[in-house]
Amino acid sequence: MEKGKKRLKSAAEKRTFRLVIAYRGTVYQGWQKQAREGGGPTVQELIEKAVKKITGGKASPHASGRTDAGVHARAQVAHLRVATHLEPERLLKAINAHLPDDIRLLSLEEASPDFHAQLHASAKTYRYFILHAPESQHVNWPFLRNFTWFVTFPLDLGAMQEAARALEGRHDFQSFRNRGTPVPHTIREIHRCVVIEHPLGSARDFPWMPGPGYEARLLEIRVEGSGFLKQMVRTIAGTLVEIGRGKRTASDMGRILSEKNRKAGGITAPPQGLFLDEVSYSKLR
Amino acid sequence: MEKGKKRLKSAAEKRTFRLVIAYRGTVYQGWQKQAREGGGPTVQELIEKAVKKITGGKASPHASGRTDAGVHARAQVAHLRVATHLEPERLLKAINAHLPDDIRLLSLEEASPDFHAQLHASAKTYRYFILHAPESQHVNWPFLRNFTWFVTFPLDLGAMQEAARALEGRHDFQSFRNRGTPVPHTIREIHRCVVIEHPLGSARDFPWMPGPGYEARLLEIRVEGSGFLKQMVRTIAGTLVEIGRGKRTASDMGRILSEKNRKAGGITAPPQGLFLDEVSYSKLR
Repeated sequence: MEKGKKRLKSAAEKRTFRLVIAYRGTVYQGWQKQAREGGGPTVQELIEKAVKKITGGKASPHASGRTDAGVHARAQVAHLRVATHLEPERLLKAINAHLPDDIRLLSLEEASPDFHAQLHASAKTYRYFILHAPESQHVNWPFLRNFTWFVTFPLDLGAMQEAARALEGRHDFQSFRNRGTPVPHTIREIHRCVVIEHPLGSARDFPWMPGPGYEARLLEIRVEGSGFLKQMVRTIAGTLVEIGRGKRTASDMGRILSEKNRKAGGITAPPQGLFLDEVSYSKLR
Repeated sequence: MEKGKKRLKSAAEKRTFRLVIAYRGTVYQGWQKQAREGGGPTVQELIEKAVKKITGGKASPHASGRTDAGVHARAQVAHLRVATHLEPERLLKAINAHLPDDIRLLSLEEASPDFHAQLHASAKTYRYFILHAPESQHVNWPFLRNFTWFVTFPLDLGAMQEAARALEGRHDFQSFRNRGTPVPHTIREIHRCVVIEHPLGSARDFPWMPGPGYEARLLEIRVEGSGFLKQMVRTIAGTLVEIGRGKRTASDMGRILSEKNRKAGGITAPPQGLFLDEVSYSKLR
């Protein structure tokens, strides 16, 4: 009886932690644990395994949203509910010690018991990178091949910028949504959608960046919004590139939105150019 | 007889090409084809296979020097002697089409028949990168883990810079040479050896670079010289880091050189931070 009481007393209660995770998605099947085996590991499943090794209990992190195979995260946010006596800093170090080097918990802190990384997220920023080289260059830069979409046809940046702005606001994004898990509705709000050219400047001095002898520029499609549908940023990026190369015009964007049909939208850009950059939480919580 | 003549006439003669190759060495067993199977592919062997597919003949590229498993090249130079009628530009495109994306021929041009990428090289530049984070940061940046050595102990940059300068000039580098293929002698000339801190500046805006919320700096050890012994740059980098962290003093460098004994030198820095940046050829040729 005495023993039983003691065990009860020392048994850890479930606590909720808020995790910020950076991952290089190249070799992973995305965030979400797969129902069927065989597709290679996922980020969620590797964190779950690490937590089990440390605490002995099964606890799976729940992220702000899924990312596809090959997609990266600079600061994914997730919550984790687990029974442990460990201090946050020790738990952080222990989990990192059990993870491969391309998945890193940047921070782990105790959160309110009901914190939910997906339901409470108020906004997200995704960034899509394009390595744009002239056709005469035609050789991809090997060090950025996992972080960019390599494009060699001429791109009209102005047309892309104009079309991007047409996506801002509250719209039905049915035309930019690939099939997947059913959702209650397909209306989302895009706060900002811009196309930026990054001056390479002193960044050229790092040998993994395109050097002075390599003619190319780095373009970014940055999308901030309240929420996103399946592969929505990648279909936006694919459509913007089709507009940039003249297959469609900037003014087509409004029509594509109003058709509310995936067939009206453009191609789905490849995953490796995409980074989940930031997830925001309303301060009212 | 007539047929035989024709075949003779159309048979291509061997031509010599000068190749400039960029490779992300992460998944390769270095440059050199391995005598025994099983260690994974090498860059040389993959180019050889591509050439065989295109020309039908066996021709192996010969580089300015070997690079170890995991080491990168921004502009390795090699020569290739092969029988082909193909124009250089077509041959370049064909070889690239048969290579994985992380090995890219940046250029291929016809060279004088006796051009030798190793024997005729007059100088080389290697660059070794360190991601230096404070101990409190303690989390490696996943996007650069294949391109840098992650170090979290305090480093005295001034001491490293002073020690680096002591290596400049003509010396016997026996203390910085790991065992390997025998060489006629171990005297080499270092034209320049410097330790640089790279201001991250606008480079922070790329999500694969350490961002504003990540406290770290990028240090580089740059070594230019007439030639290098096996793993010489990595042992120089390892020794400089030992000096930086106070395990040795800057003035030890001269003594280490004069001992002419590998045991006197420091550790061999890990391969992933190293880039073969440039190979120069004397203009007299």
